[in-house]
Amino acid sequence: MSCDPNAQIEISAFSWVPPFAEGLVRDFRVRWALEEAGLSYRCRLMDSRVDRPESYYLEQPFGQVPIYAEGDLHLFETGAIVQHIGEKDERLLPREPIARARAIQWTYAALNSVEPAVQNLVLIDLFYAEEEWGKLRRQGAEEFARSRMKRVSDWLGDKPWLEDRFTIGDLMMITVLRIPRHTKLLDEFPNLAAYVARGEARPAFQQALADQLAAFKQDESAAA
Amino acid sequence: MSCDPNAQIEISAFSWVPPFAEGLVRDFRVRWALEEAGLSYRCRLMDSRVDRPESYYLEQPFGQVPIYAEGDLHLFETGAIVQHIGEKDERLLPREPIARARAIQWTYAALNSVEPAVQNLVLIDLFYAEEEWGKLRRQGAEEFARSRMKRVSDWLGDKPWLEDRFTIGDLMMITVLRIPRHTKLLDEFPNLAAYVARGEARPAFQQALADQLAAFKQDESAAA
Repeated sequence: MSCDPNAQIEISAFSWVPPFAEGLVRDFRVRWALEEAGLSYRCRLMDSRVDRPESYYLEQPFGQVPIYAEGDLHLFETGAIVQHIGEKDERLLPREPIARARAIQWTYAALNSVEPAVQNLVLIDLFYAEEEWGKLRRQGAEEFARSRMKRVSDWLGDKPWLEDRFTIGDLMMITVLRIPRHTKLLDEFPNLAAYVARGEARPAFQQALADQLAAFKQDESAAA
Repeated sequence: MSCDPNAQIEISAFSWVPPFAEGLVRDFRVRWALEEAGLSYRCRLMDSRVDRPESYYLEQPFGQVPIYAEGDLHLFETGAIVQHIGEKDERLLPREPIARARAIQWTYAALNSVEPAVQNLVLIDLFYAEEEWGKLRRQGAEEFARSRMKRVSDWLGDKPWLEDRFTIGDLMMITVLRIPRHTKLLDEFPNLAAYVARGEARPAFQQALADQLAAFKQDESAAA
């Protein structure tokens, strides 16, 4: 699918991020969902090293990427955007009411019950590793992240996906489980590691990843 | 509305929590949404001091409250439950597609962009205040919570609600902004304080709060 400058849907993304963030920046989730749904989109690229203009906060009050624009609809928050894309495609969000509610439930679970725990560990490792509080807190933060991942692992068991089939809930959970990739945490849960690999093997995932990374490469050649 | 033992909808809740958690436990969000929609519900009460039985994790993989049961539908995650209740009542979740997507967006924003920041501060104050890392980290954690609250305050401006009218997004954001009530943070943003007070003044909020607190009082009299 790739970025199409004439597409109706626009997302914001970064033209450069530090290497540790490549493939993790949140626009990736939206790119992946759009690829699964076969929808083309165009990118509004911004340099993550430059402060966002004040006007951007009117579109995204927290100053982050991505925003999503489609005609008169302007959305932020990847959970809401991915759910919106799911509404367009039954392959991402089942129409049957119970399956639908369960898929949405896992989208929230990824963002509220798992991401804060793993994100906290990543922040310590990437930004506070040399600070005294970071050193003192790291083990506790890792244990909390591990306990949340264990609960997802227990739930998943030997199922391929969190519910009967792949949904936006899996898409979101897999992107969250990839966040602590600088640690060995995922390897402690072989079924979770296989689950993440299953998501990463999807053609839509691969295309979305290539497109996010391509934006960064573009910036490198511009700078060269 | 109050708890009705014969209601079709069941939620799980605690029969006892420490005083700092009274009125904040997450089943409150669901009670409030049910009251706004005029739906009665029954409560499955559990003692928060007793470990949940393993079977509970099959219903709520993270062992928390609330779960929500309605016939064959079983849900956890307050975001998903409140959104599900919103689907039943246009007063909570507009039917018009753009207004609907924006309301859902704020529900996610409350849970993913604001709650982790304020929750982190609360955890330090309530559980780690005497630990060295907690003392060293507190100021940074408070600054981060403040920065997120400032962004919500800037967005809200002098509007009564986050979008044109009260929705599940406000319900969720208000419950999140109440979390750091042991601090003076909210007072730094008069428009946010007024926004929270506006939510608290709603009859459905008052009823839900009374019902959550009544469950705790029941336990006290049973123990006496």
